[in-house]
Amino acid sequence: MSMRDAITDLLFDYAALIDAGDFEAWLDLFTEDASYRAVPRENFDRGLPVALIYCTNKNMLRDRIVSLREANEYNFHYDRHLITNVRVRALAEAEWQVDANYAVMQTDMEGNSRLFSVGRYQDRVRVEEERLLFCEKLVVIDNFSVPTLLATPL
Amino acid sequence: MSMRDAITDLLFDYAALIDAGDFEAWLDLFTEDASYRAVPRENFDRGLPVALIYCTNKNMLRDRIVSLREANEYNFHYDRHLITNVRVRALAEAEWQVDANYAVMQTDMEGNSRLFSVGRYQDRVRVEEERLLFCEKLVVIDNFSVPTLLATPL
Amino acid sequence: MSMRDAITDLLFDYAALIDAGDFEAWLDLFTEDASYRAVPRENFDRGLPVALIYCTNKNMLRDRIVSLREANEYNFHYDRHLITNVRVRALAEAEWQVDANYAVMQTDMEGNSRLFSVGRYQDRVRVEEERLLFCEKLVVIDNFSVPTLLATPL
Repeated sequence: MSMRDAITDLLFDYAALIDAGDFEAWLDLFTEDASYRAVPRENFDRGLPVALIYCTNKNMLRDRIVSLREANEYNFHYDRHLITNVRVRALAEAEWQVDANYAVMQTDMEGNSRLFSVGRYQDRVRVEEERLLFCEKLVVIDNFSVPTLLATPL
Repeated sequence: MSMRDAITDLLFDYAALIDAGDFEAWLDLFTEDASYRAVPRENFDRGLPVALIYCTNKNMLRDRIVSLREANEYNFHYDRHLITNVRVRALAEAEWQVDANYAVMQTDMEGNSRLFSVGRYQDRVRVEEERLLFCEKLVVIDNFSVPTLLATPL
Repeated sequence: MSMRDAITDLLFDYAALIDAGDFEAWLDLFTEDASYRAVPRENFDRGLPVALIYCTNKNMLRDRIVSLREANEYNFHYDRHLITNVRVRALAEAEWQVDANYAVMQTDMEGNSRLFSVGRYQDRVRVEEERLLFCEKLVVIDNFSVPTLLATPL
C-alpha cells in the first residue's frame, strides 16, 4: 500500500472510531506528545490564537474522553463523518502533512439528521514504532456558532 | 489499477447509475445471489433484525426496480450520492469487504436540495467471470425517520 | 504518483483555492483555451443549452474574477467544497475525463452553515508544458434554484 493510501486510511479510522463512539481506540491513534486543536475559521484566518479546544498532549485528550464518559449528560446523538479532499505531503523522513475537508452529520434520537459542523483538518502524522499516528490534529471549523461542540470530538 | 481503486470505482459506478436513474444497469452490478439490506442504525446497533428493505437475491431486487418503474407515483426528485471514507479489506482469494460513508442529497422539482439520508455501507464484493460485483450490500441508515425511503435505492 | 492521484489532487487544489478565496491562483489551473460552464441539471438532461455561466476561454473567466474582486458587494461567506466520487478515464495521449460529485457548504458571517449547492463535475484535463490543467470545466448543478450563484465559482 502506498503511504498516501495508508495515511488516508488513518484518517478514515479516526472517523470510524468517533462515529462508533469508541473513543478509547480513537485515543490510540495519537502519539503521546500529540496536540489536538479546534479553532474557529474566523480566528484562524486572522491569526488569533483562541481555540475552542486545545489539548497540548495525549493526557489532556485522555482527560476529555474520561469527562465525556462520566458526564454523559450531553444530548445523545449519532455522528457521521464525511471526509473528503484528502491531500498528503511529505514533510520529513517519516512525517507527513495531511489536509482534508470534513462535514459531520448528526442524527438525534428522533432519527433526524442535520449538518452539524463543516471545516477542514490540517494534521501531521508520523511513524512511531512502525505505526502511523497523529502527532498534530488541527480542526478549523467553518461554522463557529456550532452549539454543542464540546461533546464528541470532531 | 490496484484492487483498492477498482473496488472504489465500483462503488462510484453504483452511485452514478442510481443518480442517473439507470436502475437496470445498476442491477448488473450485483451477483445473482446478492443480498441487499437497508437497516436503521438504531436497530443494527442493538442486533435487531428489522430491515426497511431486505432482498435476499437479485431477483427480489429486480422486482423492486420493476415496481419502481411501474408505480412511478413517487415524488419525482434528483439524487446525488456523496460517498466518502472508502475502506477496502481482503476477505478471501477473490472477495473483499468494502466500507464507506454516504450522504444522499435530494433535489425536488422546485430545485431545492436537502440532506435526504446519511449512513454507511458495509458491502462485500467478489470477482465473477472477471467482473467485480456486489455480493452483499448492507446500508446502515443513521436517519431512520427518512420519510420516502422506499422509492429509489440508497 | 499515478495519473489518477495527480488528477484527483488537481481537483482538490481547485477546491482549496476557491475555499481560500485565492481566485488568481485558481485561474492558473486552466489552459488559455479552457471553457467553464455551469448548467442546471434540468436543462442539461434535456439537452437545453442554457447555462448560468458560460466562459469559452480563460480571458472570460479572468474577467469574472476581476468583477468579483471589484464588485465585492456580494454577501460575504465562507465556502467549503466536499468533492467525492472522483472517476478518471483516459481520453487521449495526454488528456483525461474526470467526473466527480460535489457539495458546497456555505457559512455566513454569523457562523451558520448550510448546503449551498450540490451537483457534479464533468471535466477534461490535459498536460501542457508539463503541468496538468483544466481545459474544460462543466458544473451540472442539481439545485438550480441556488440564489446567489454568480458570486464565487463552484
